[in-house]
Amino acid sequence: MRDALVAAAFRLFLERGYEQTTVDDIVALAGVGRRSFFRYFPSKEDVVFPDHEQCLDEMTAFLAAGAADDDPVRRVCDAARLVVRMYAENPAFSVQRYHLTKKVPGLRAYELSVVWRYERALAGYLRTRFAGLRDGGLRADVIAAAVVAAHNNALRSWLRSDGKGDAEAAVDHALGQVQAAFGATPVPPAAEGPEDVVVVVTRRGAPLWRVVQELESALGRGWDETPRPRF
Amino acid sequence: MRDALVAAAFRLFLERGYEQTTVDDIVALAGVGRRSFFRYFPSKEDVVFPDHEQCLDEMTAFLAAGAADDDPVRRVCDAARLVVRMYAENPAFSVQRYHLTKKVPGLRAYELSVVWRYERALAGYLRTRFAGLRDGGLRADVIAAAVVAAHNNALRSWLRSDGKGDAEAAVDHALGQVQAAFGATPVPPAAEGPEDVVVVVTRRGAPLWRVVQELESALGRGWDETPRPRF
Repeated sequence: MRDALVAAAFRLFLERGYEQTTVDDIVALAGVGRRSFFRYFPSKEDVVFPDHEQCLDEMTAFLAAGAADDDPVRRVCDAARLVVRMYAENPAFSVQRYHLTKKVPGLRAYELSVVWRYERALAGYLRTRFAGLRDGGLRADVIAAAVVAAHNNALRSWLRSDGKGDAEAAVDHALGQVQAAFGATPVPPAAEGPEDVVVVVTRRGAPLWRVVQELESALGRGWDETPRPRF
Repeated sequence: MRDALVAAAFRLFLERGYEQTTVDDIVALAGVGRRSFFRYFPSKEDVVFPDHEQCLDEMTAFLAAGAADDDPVRRVCDAARLVVRMYAENPAFSVQRYHLTKKVPGLRAYELSVVWRYERALAGYLRTRFAGLRDGGLRADVIAAAVVAAHNNALRSWLRSDGKGDAEAAVDHALGQVQAAFGATPVPPAAEGPEDVVVVVTRRGAPLWRVVQELESALGRGWDETPRPRF
């Protein structure tokens, strides 16, 4: 029933336009009553984004299930991957919705509020993990925003390409840049081998991001499984 | 007239609540006609945020006026400072609006759309500056989001404290972290002095942010005029 309502709604939105379609039109096409619609969707806007509530719940549960020694930045990147996975599961629907959302200001506003809720879920987790760190709350907010921006950059490129290519790989690449800028693999236990040192020599005036690039290059692939950072 | 409308609107919003106040109520208290209201504000929501359009214009102009050799991250941080300056110019009004916005979902949505427009202005500038760089668009989006998140983290703290303390200094501190993570002062010309080198020795397994911290500490205060980074 829920899927039938979504299918009917999108058929009408594409045929007539979003604004010109009423909830009555949708329920008539789906062959159900108005009350059935509102049992599943609080408003017409919600039928455009039928899976975000569930995805937000999954993200919250995923973050809550994290272990105390998880690398926090890696954890929020993995949480963000739940979102792209939802889009990638149904490319045709995701692309349709992308075009619809671009055209309707009310839907763009709705989408911004959903993005904001994802970002707050990530930031909330990071705040807990960074509690007691100086500027922990600031760091949490900045990293959450960076993760969301990287995710959305890759997701938008995929949507603009009409869902061609591998959305999850594109998001992995983008999140790899954020992990490189902010994240870290946990320090391996000392027992695993002798302490291995890296020496970096740099000019004092070199831009910090270039120094970090050098450093990452010196540390090599063993440093992290993420793609080589280019920030 | 514009100021009188804003003053009348806020007086009523605080006395009766935002939803319970109509445009008719506002124009009656201000002693003007409805058309005057709509000459200044497209909707009731817009009267809550009377200065953002002008601030967005100023930001766009500021970014467009940048020189080709400006450090791009510093430039977007300076652009973000225009926003906090607007809030700090009128602390009592800013704090009132903060409390009002927290209570009214429609105003929160409006605010998110304004924040999004600031972020797109910053990202647009950075995209131009990073054109031709590998992952330039991604880098632009991530840095713009980080700048906005840092700015808003500091701004919200100041608003929550009822506008006590120095909002601009708090934002400077927060933006300093972003500049430390992503930015750089331009490389000084070689003619200025002998090349000064820094050597950093680190364990291979150390988290990258700790290495960056060490590095910044080794580079010392001369590195940058921003506060010492703590990311």
